[in-house]
Amino acid sequence: MTDDLPNPALLPAGLADLLPPEAEREAALVEAMMAIFAGHGYERVKPPLLEFEDSLLAGSGAAVAEQTFRLMDPVSQRMMGLRADTTPQVARIAATRLATQARPLRLCYAGQALRVRGSQLAPARQVPQAGVELIGGAAPAADAEVATVAVEALASVGVRAVSLDVTLPTMVPALLEAAAPPDAARARLARALDRKDSAAVSALVKDLGGVLSVLPALMAAAGPADGALAALEAAALPPPARAIAENAAAVLVAIRARAPGLRITLDPVEFRGFRYHTGVAFTLYGPGMSGELARGGRYVSQNDEPATGMTVYPDAVLRAAPPVPARARVFVPLGGDGTGLRAQGFATVAALAPEDTAARLRCTHELKDGRAVPVVVKD
Amino acid sequence: MTDDLPNPALLPAGLADLLPPEAEREAALVEAMMAIFAGHGYERVKPPLLEFEDSLLAGSGAAVAEQTFRLMDPVSQRMMGLRADTTPQVARIAATRLATQARPLRLCYAGQALRVRGSQLAPARQVPQAGVELIGGAAPAADAEVATVAVEALASVGVRAVSLDVTLPTMVPALLEAAAPPDAARARLARALDRKDSAAVSALVKDLGGVLSVLPALMAAAGPADGALAALEAAALPPPARAIAENAAAVLVAIRARAPGLRITLDPVEFRGFRYHTGVAFTLYGPGMSGELARGGRYVSQNDEPATGMTVYPDAVLRAAPPVPARARVFVPLGGDGTGLRAQGFATVAALAPEDTAARLRCTHELKDGRAVPVVVKD
Repeated sequence: MTDDLPNPALLPAGLADLLPPEAEREAALVEAMMAIFAGHGYERVKPPLLEFEDSLLAGSGAAVAEQTFRLMDPVSQRMMGLRADTTPQVARIAATRLATQARPLRLCYAGQALRVRGSQLAPARQVPQAGVELIGGAAPAADAEVATVAVEALASVGVRAVSLDVTLPTMVPALLEAAAPPDAARARLARALDRKDSAAVSALVKDLGGVLSVLPALMAAAGPADGALAALEAAALPPPARAIAENAAAVLVAIRARAPGLRITLDPVEFRGFRYHTGVAFTLYGPGMSGELARGGRYVSQNDEPATGMTVYPDAVLRAAPPVPARARVFVPLGGDGTGLRAQGFATVAALAPEDTAARLRCTHELKDGRAVPVVVKD
Repeated sequence: MTDDLPNPALLPAGLADLLPPEAEREAALVEAMMAIFAGHGYERVKPPLLEFEDSLLAGSGAAVAEQTFRLMDPVSQRMMGLRADTTPQVARIAATRLATQARPLRLCYAGQALRVRGSQLAPARQVPQAGVELIGGAAPAADAEVATVAVEALASVGVRAVSLDVTLPTMVPALLEAAAPPDAARARLARALDRKDSAAVSALVKDLGGVLSVLPALMAAAGPADGALAALEAAALPPPARAIAENAAAVLVAIRARAPGLRITLDPVEFRGFRYHTGVAFTLYGPGMSGELARGGRYVSQNDEPATGMTVYPDAVLRAAPPVPARARVFVPLGGDGTGLRAQGFATVAALAPEDTAARLRCTHELKDGRAVPVVVKD
């Protein structure tokens, strides 16, 4: 049913209807993943879609401020925002209504987020999110838990062979801080790193020298986690950068203990797109070309609490997940009773008028003598 | 956890966080009800939260136009609305992307709706909805199906002893049309009916005479369906009103056949609050004082297709549903493995640091020798 392209004038760009059977599949995989989160002690919260913009855009919410739809609240005459991300709302709940609960606090959520504009790569402006937040725990084991719980959630809906990409968004800033290069050189270096232009990076750090001379080796080490960790170990890092590297190593040890078979890559100098992350950052990629399925990592929650979390993108998971067999539909003729068949897991479709037939109602089976009999397609 | 009142300045009026364990319970009961809908052949759709206001407010959407938040779409420079009701969106999907599917088309949905203002009785401005729409079927059996499927959905989450209130919102307009009283008298009569002021209605129809003289008897008959149907049968009704009464009788026969034990009331002259309904209208009340759990009835969908549907209000169902036992939480000490316990349905809560204890993490059990052992509370 999704083959018919919608009339482009019908819905705003980036907003779409999910039709049968995809809408049911997406809901089912969200609840299956939420069951995994609940199984690990993450308790569900449901913040409202709209709230005052000053609370919505506080903390990590600032990262999505320009992507947030704003509305005037006619009741309070204050500006409200439609959430573009759920993490800031969970942080607010943890810091207010759940402030007195012992830490670490494990919360999970599922719902829709809305964005003012889509990008070329991610045109959707309504994005379902399902995620976990672990608030008030600074241990590397906490980062490992949220990452591996997300991997387990994906596996529960048939998405296996994922790859966990670990980045250290504070590493380059720590090196720049220690080296304190002139502003112009810093900007050129950031651009070269952003473009992954290793020749330019090498040329720039040759001029600048000092601690930045580790950059070409760290860039080259991006790839399977073991190699990248070895390069970090071997590099001459100033103390703050060394602490970041040691934390990353501890997180990876904890992940390996929980998920020995997981494919992990580490890029020590990548820092794009993780604007509020303060430690390890994670991206989970699906097999083949199915793209980003989840993102997360360590951040500072409200009241300066250490926190870590993962957000899974159910729309991407839906594209990556294996197909599910269509539900058998049993035609129930006028006066028939499908109760027993529904108890067996069939969907029943009742005739309501004489013109209703099994074929017309797209039924795979029909009720005959109390049983579901496959519909014989006549040529 | 819901005992702490939120800071009133924290969230806009009518918008609230759902906390543990309510957020999980609400999601579970929505999916349980959606499973009932799917069992009756209703296929799930998921329209976006935002769409162009001209499509959102078309047809039955006009009834909620003044309750719809509006936003400018920076991409198209056209006005969008945040849905205040899901039925108009399902009607749009049925009339466009599913236009070529045979009728009747059975669709279901679950999601959030947002309203500009709450009322004193219903202060919430974010309202979860879960519902069914049956589009392209005019048979009384279709109305009976949507009503009884909603009753079955409520029963599946433990809400039994509901009462189905049937109204005929076109009956009074049909009588007024036939009688054609002067405008001033018509307005006074509508007000008197609205206030259920039978003395005023009797006085007014005494002056007006004609077909309107059936009104006092119909007003008095509001109550258990059999008595109200008998009063309709006995009343001298003009042909359009007679057709409405006969249709109501046929719908009630079809409901009784499907749900023999259901308590049904019928108010033949009630017409408030069903602004787009064109036939029978339904309200499902919970036991005791738990209030309205669902509403629906017959309407005209896009392209003038006959349609009928029911919307269940999960927030009200959550208040009416019996409590669910809390999930057992098993503390897993550092280095322990909770995999086996999760497979048995326990939630496991892993220690991440030496200070994490079973009591601190609100665990009911702890992992000992591979088993979940109840935590002994020390006095």
